[in-house]
Amino acid sequence: MTGLKVCIVGSGNWGSAIAKIVGGNVMKFDKFDKRVNMWVFEEMINGQKLTEIINTTHENVKYLKGIKLPESVFAVPDLVDAAKDADILIFVLPHQFVKRCCDSLAGKLKSGAVGISLIKGFERSPEGGIELISKNISSRLNIQCSVLMGANIASEVAEEKFCETTIGSAEMEMGKTLKELFETSYFRVVVVDDVYTVEACGALKNIVACAAGFSDGLGYGDNTKAAVIRIGLMEMVKFTEVFFTGSKLSTFLESCGVADLITTCYGGRNRRVSEAFVKSGKTIEELEKEMLNGQQLQGPHTADEINVMLKNKKMEDKFPLFTAVYRICHREIPPQALIDCIREHPEHM
Amino acid sequence: MTGLKVCIVGSGNWGSAIAKIVGGNVMKFDKFDKRVNMWVFEEMINGQKLTEIINTTHENVKYLKGIKLPESVFAVPDLVDAAKDADILIFVLPHQFVKRCCDSLAGKLKSGAVGISLIKGFERSPEGGIELISKNISSRLNIQCSVLMGANIASEVAEEKFCETTIGSAEMEMGKTLKELFETSYFRVVVVDDVYTVEACGALKNIVACAAGFSDGLGYGDNTKAAVIRIGLMEMVKFTEVFFTGSKLSTFLESCGVADLITTCYGGRNRRVSEAFVKSGKTIEELEKEMLNGQQLQGPHTADEINVMLKNKKMEDKFPLFTAVYRICHREIPPQALIDCIREHPEHM
Repeated sequence: MTGLKVCIVGSGNWGSAIAKIVGGNVMKFDKFDKRVNMWVFEEMINGQKLTEIINTTHENVKYLKGIKLPESVFAVPDLVDAAKDADILIFVLPHQFVKRCCDSLAGKLKSGAVGISLIKGFERSPEGGIELISKNISSRLNIQCSVLMGANIASEVAEEKFCETTIGSAEMEMGKTLKELFETSYFRVVVVDDVYTVEACGALKNIVACAAGFSDGLGYGDNTKAAVIRIGLMEMVKFTEVFFTGSKLSTFLESCGVADLITTCYGGRNRRVSEAFVKSGKTIEELEKEMLNGQQLQGPHTADEINVMLKNKKMEDKFPLFTAVYRICHREIPPQALIDCIREHPEHM
Repeated sequence: MTGLKVCIVGSGNWGSAIAKIVGGNVMKFDKFDKRVNMWVFEEMINGQKLTEIINTTHENVKYLKGIKLPESVFAVPDLVDAAKDADILIFVLPHQFVKRCCDSLAGKLKSGAVGISLIKGFERSPEGGIELISKNISSRLNIQCSVLMGANIASEVAEEKFCETTIGSAEMEMGKTLKELFETSYFRVVVVDDVYTVEACGALKNIVACAAGFSDGLGYGDNTKAAVIRIGLMEMVKFTEVFFTGSKLSTFLESCGVADLITTCYGGRNRRVSEAFVKSGKTIEELEKEMLNGQQLQGPHTADEINVMLKNKKMEDKFPLFTAVYRICHREIPPQALIDCIREHPEHM
C-alpha cells in the first residue's frame, strides 16, 4: 500500500510556510507518500524559472525568502500535473483564483481525493451575499473539503514561533489524518467538526477589525475597544447561527475564533487602515492605494457582502455593528456614529 | 411604599465612578429611594473632612477628581449608619478590607437586604486555596450576593466612555432590578445567572495576563501572544468547570470574560510588570516596589492560591499555563520555559 499523496495548490507566503510543515511531516508518518507536489505559478526570477530555483535551492526566493523547504517538496508548474494523483489537496491561494483553479482541475482528480482550504474570505454568490470557499471548492470539484484557520501570520509560522490553528473537518477520521499532516511542536492543531463556523470566523473577523480600527481612530480607550470587539464577536456568533446551521459556541473559543479575532483587532491591516480612515477623512479606495499598494482591504468588502444577506433577511437591526461598519465605509454615517449604533444592542436587551 | 434604599460600601476610584451612575439612576426609577448613602472612610484633606467635601462640593477630590457626583449621593463616615437601612448594598472596596467590613455589619443589616460585589480578586481560604468574595460576603452577612465585573477602567467609566459590564445574579428578578440600578447609555449591562463564573473570570484573567506579559518580554509576536491568551482562556473555562459547578461556556463570551481578558492582556499592569520581570531579571517583589509603589500585583498571588488548589487535586498537569506562571514567578523555571510548558497542552490532544 502506498502512502497518501499530498499536493499543495498555491505557493505564496502562506503556502510556502505550510509546505515547510507538510514537507517535514510526510517524512515522519508512514501513511503519507514522501513526495509533496507544490503547484507554483511559473515566474521568471533574474532569468531563471521560479520552479527550478525552488527545486534546486529548496527556497521560495520570491515569497518566503530565507526559509529552507524540505527536500520532499517539489515545485510543479502545471496545476493538473501537480494535483492529478493527489489524495489530499491543500488549497492555499488568493481567493480570486479559486474559480479558475477549480475549472482546471474539475474531472481530473483522483477518485476519493479530499481537499482542505486555508483560504480566508468569502466568494460572492450569484444571488448576492456570500458563499464559503470550502463549499465552493467542494461543489466545483465534487470532493469533501475541510478547512484550516487560526491566528497564523505566515512569516511567524515559518520562523517556528509557537502558535495554534483550528482544523474544521466534518469527518473525524479525516480530521485525525489532517492533524498529523499539519501539526508540529510549534504549530498546534485542534480539530473540530464545525467546518462552516471555522471558515466563517476567518472572514467575519475582518469586519470587527474595521470597527476596532474606527474605535482607535476616534481615540476611545481600552474599555470601549474591548466592548467593540466583544459585541463584534457576538454578532459573529449570531451570524453563523442564522446563516449556517449547526454552529457551536465552543468553536468561537478556538484559535480560528477568539485568537484570530484578537490578533486582527490589535495588529492587522483592517484595523490599521480603518484607523487611518477616521483620522485622514480619505476613502477606503484611496487608502487601499496609499497603504496597501492597491490591494483590496477585506473587511469593507466582506461588510458589503454580509449587508446584502442581512438586507435580504431584513435583519440589519439585529447586527448593528456589522451594519454600522458597512455604512461608515460607504460614508452613509460618520465614524463617530459607531458607538451610537451599538449602544442599544440586542445583546443588552 | 418607599423605594429601595441603596448603600455604596466603598468610595475609592471605582466606588466613586459607580456612585455617579447609581446616584443618577435612582432619580430615574420610582422603585429606588432618592438618597444613596456612600460609606467613606474618613480622611482629612487640607484640614477638611473628606465626607464634608463630598457632601458640599459633590466631588470625591481624593479618589475621582474632576467628576461631579449626583446630589443624591451622600457621603457617610460611619459604616453601620450608612448601611443599616439599605435594601441593596454595593460592595466596592479593596478586598483586604472585606473581612473587617463584614464584621462591622454582621447582624446589623435590614432583613431581606441583598448585596452586589464589584470586588475583583479572591479571598484566601483557611484550608489554602481560594474563596470567592461574593460567597464570603454572603456567608458572613447571611445575605444573597450578586456580582458585577467587566472590562471597566474606573476613569474611563467616569468620563462616560462607552463600555459593557456583566452582572451575575442567581435570581433573575433581582438581576433585573440591578440592571436598572447600574445601566446607562454608556455603561451597558448584560445579566447572567452564572455568578461564580463571572467572579472567577475577574481573578483568573490576571494569571493569564502574566503569561501574556512574559510572552511580550520574550519578544514573541502576535500569533504566540494570541495562542497564550487563548490557552489561558481555556484554562479559565476548565478551572471553573472543576471548581465551581454549573459554569456556562457562554459566560466567558461576556464582558467579564473575553473582553476583560483582552484589556488586561494588552493594557493592564499584570502584563506590564510581567514583561519587566523577563527583561529586568528582578523579582516580582522588587518590581512591585519600583513599578507599583509597593502595591501587590494580583496575578502572581492568584497563581499561588490557585496552585494550592491544583496541587491538592493533583491537577497541575491539566493546567500547564497556570502552573507555569506560578513556577516562573517563583523562579523555579525560567520565563523561557513558558512555551515549552504549554506546547503539549491537553487542549491539543
